[in-house]
Amino acid sequence: MSTSRRQLLAAAGASALAIAPQANAQTATAIRWRMVTSYPKSLDVLHGGCELIARRVSELTNGQFIISVHSAGEVVPALAVFDAVSNNTVQCGHTAAYYYIGKDTSFIFDTALPFGMNARNHVAWLRHGGGLELLRDLYKKSSILNIPAGNTGAQAGGWFRKEIKSVKDLKGLRMRIPGWGARIMAELGVIPQNIPGGEVYAALEKGTIDATEWVGPHDDEKLSLFKVASNYYFPGWWEPCGQLSMYINTSEWEKLPKQYQSAIETACGEAYSQMLSEYDAKNPTALRRLVSQGTKLRRFPNDLLQAANKKSNELFEEESNKNPAFKALLTSYREFEKLQTPWYGLSEYGMESFMRRSNPG
Amino acid sequence: MSTSRRQLLAAAGASALAIAPQANAQTATAIRWRMVTSYPKSLDVLHGGCELIARRVSELTNGQFIISVHSAGEVVPALAVFDAVSNNTVQCGHTAAYYYIGKDTSFIFDTALPFGMNARNHVAWLRHGGGLELLRDLYKKSSILNIPAGNTGAQAGGWFRKEIKSVKDLKGLRMRIPGWGARIMAELGVIPQNIPGGEVYAALEKGTIDATEWVGPHDDEKLSLFKVASNYYFPGWWEPCGQLSMYINTSEWEKLPKQYQSAIETACGEAYSQMLSEYDAKNPTALRRLVSQGTKLRRFPNDLLQAANKKSNELFEEESNKNPAFKALLTSYREFEKLQTPWYGLSEYGMESFMRRSNPG
Repeated sequence: MSTSRRQLLAAAGASALAIAPQANAQTATAIRWRMVTSYPKSLDVLHGGCELIARRVSELTNGQFIISVHSAGEVVPALAVFDAVSNNTVQCGHTAAYYYIGKDTSFIFDTALPFGMNARNHVAWLRHGGGLELLRDLYKKSSILNIPAGNTGAQAGGWFRKEIKSVKDLKGLRMRIPGWGARIMAELGVIPQNIPGGEVYAALEKGTIDATEWVGPHDDEKLSLFKVASNYYFPGWWEPCGQLSMYINTSEWEKLPKQYQSAIETACGEAYSQMLSEYDAKNPTALRRLVSQGTKLRRFPNDLLQAANKKSNELFEEESNKNPAFKALLTSYREFEKLQTPWYGLSEYGMESFMRRSNPG
Repeated sequence: MSTSRRQLLAAAGASALAIAPQANAQTATAIRWRMVTSYPKSLDVLHGGCELIARRVSELTNGQFIISVHSAGEVVPALAVFDAVSNNTVQCGHTAAYYYIGKDTSFIFDTALPFGMNARNHVAWLRHGGGLELLRDLYKKSSILNIPAGNTGAQAGGWFRKEIKSVKDLKGLRMRIPGWGARIMAELGVIPQNIPGGEVYAALEKGTIDATEWVGPHDDEKLSLFKVASNYYFPGWWEPCGQLSMYINTSEWEKLPKQYQSAIETACGEAYSQMLSEYDAKNPTALRRLVSQGTKLRRFPNDLLQAANKKSNELFEEESNKNPAFKALLTSYREFEKLQTPWYGLSEYGMESFMRRSNPG
């Protein structure tokens, strides 16, 4: 059947009337959201990961679902992401759950456990070991849906003005360290300090503090900490990984069409892995530059690690007895970890051990 | 301004004429693709990862872009994915590039290098270390666009009827092992056999072969290999990771609207990480069941690992001298690896070493 231009136009007109409701529906699904984050723009991998999620969501919806990304302080302070999403001040946010252990200590299981699982094992537990279900039950009470959406990998132990030769050297040391790490450090004699990132350099230079932790070589280099403290310690046992979450207000989530929900979920899944890869690629080159500028790489002494590990386990037990949600999460986490350890030892760790023995240095 | 029903209909009619071409464009972008894979459905994590990609692409396009997944043999044989995509027999496929080292040995860099980088370091190199650009130049000649889309993690070394106490015990051993691993094993005295997965059990039971490798505990358990060989060896040094790729015919790719391209890219990014997590969660439980049924876990003797590592490096050098693309990839890979090693040693490996020393067993 041949179609004249007139027939075509007529057909277009007819079908157009028919599709008018759908056109309205499409207009209705043009959505704008705000995403607040806990990161300054200078943390380019973290901020970039959030921008990636927003860009993907826009691409995946043909520009119909736009999420604007607001770094720490732009809309709400860095550590107010939880409340802003919970109260629906904004629809979503990107943050690290361990900032909110003041609300419920159980949130630490979303980020990392001191001396706990690495990034791969941790996210496997979240996705396939029951971790996410337990955490979602907890978040739901605050009207938040959480989605794994990034990871820093194992962090560095931080910058110390003086060498630490034994756990005894921590006695009276003023260290900038937040969260659960601070609780353990305090048990070992440290006087923990809570100082925003922007003020850490000056405090360390003046000697107001003796040590500070931040993230890892790539982010630490930007704060120029190497100029005022030459001892860079490893490993950052309080963060064997740093899992980051997308928080979404549950009532806003429920309003989204399935396509848009899927866009967020898929973009978070991609960003999880992309962010970790970018840190993995950028940390080693930063580390090399730091060393070439005089930074001394040091391992925490064994007695310090052992004492911290012991205190850490004691604190977990203590917390378990006080908080049933914490207990349920710790039980699930430990069961999963117990299975991971032998398998990972045979496969990943077994391979790497051989390579390091064969090619030392 | 108030709008009567008549005005509304008139407006709808007017705008409808204006949007008619777009309505046509939308109809035109209802697309059906076929994805062929190299995996039988029994490899549920791999097959499930492919299904996840297809499901996400459908969700992200409101059911407009449908990809049907065809397991090995359904449309083309397991190892014909490369050709099927290259020739545009199908639009896309999911496979492991090391099946195609017969076409160009350089493809091994897409999957894993024996004694090479682990999954995290490998994908960081692909995405942020220049690996993907080099590989894409190579694939482009065959009209294929490659996207990282899954990983098995470090594989197991396989099932041996007899204990291997030294590299000498490999002399004359008939082992089912494909690809580059087979080349190295042959240098150590093994007589490599190429047997499809479905026939491995019978061959091992009858003694036609003395040993076989497959994937890892979760997949190996399904082949019941533990019933006919009790020695399960680690690590699978020929696959310190198993990166899997989505192959897309480049002319089909160019025809896609940007939204659909983004849907595939994002879904592959999510699947990359999901597949690895699922293996990480399922391998340990399978390993426990295998051990409870009498499987003996063994490490390859050190002299075997050392000899294999040496042969492996010799083969890389040899290949580099013959193949400029291989040389460019090896140079890029080694530079990245050299930077990764010290950083990973301080952070991830440093943390894990301490934990294993503190909690042996």
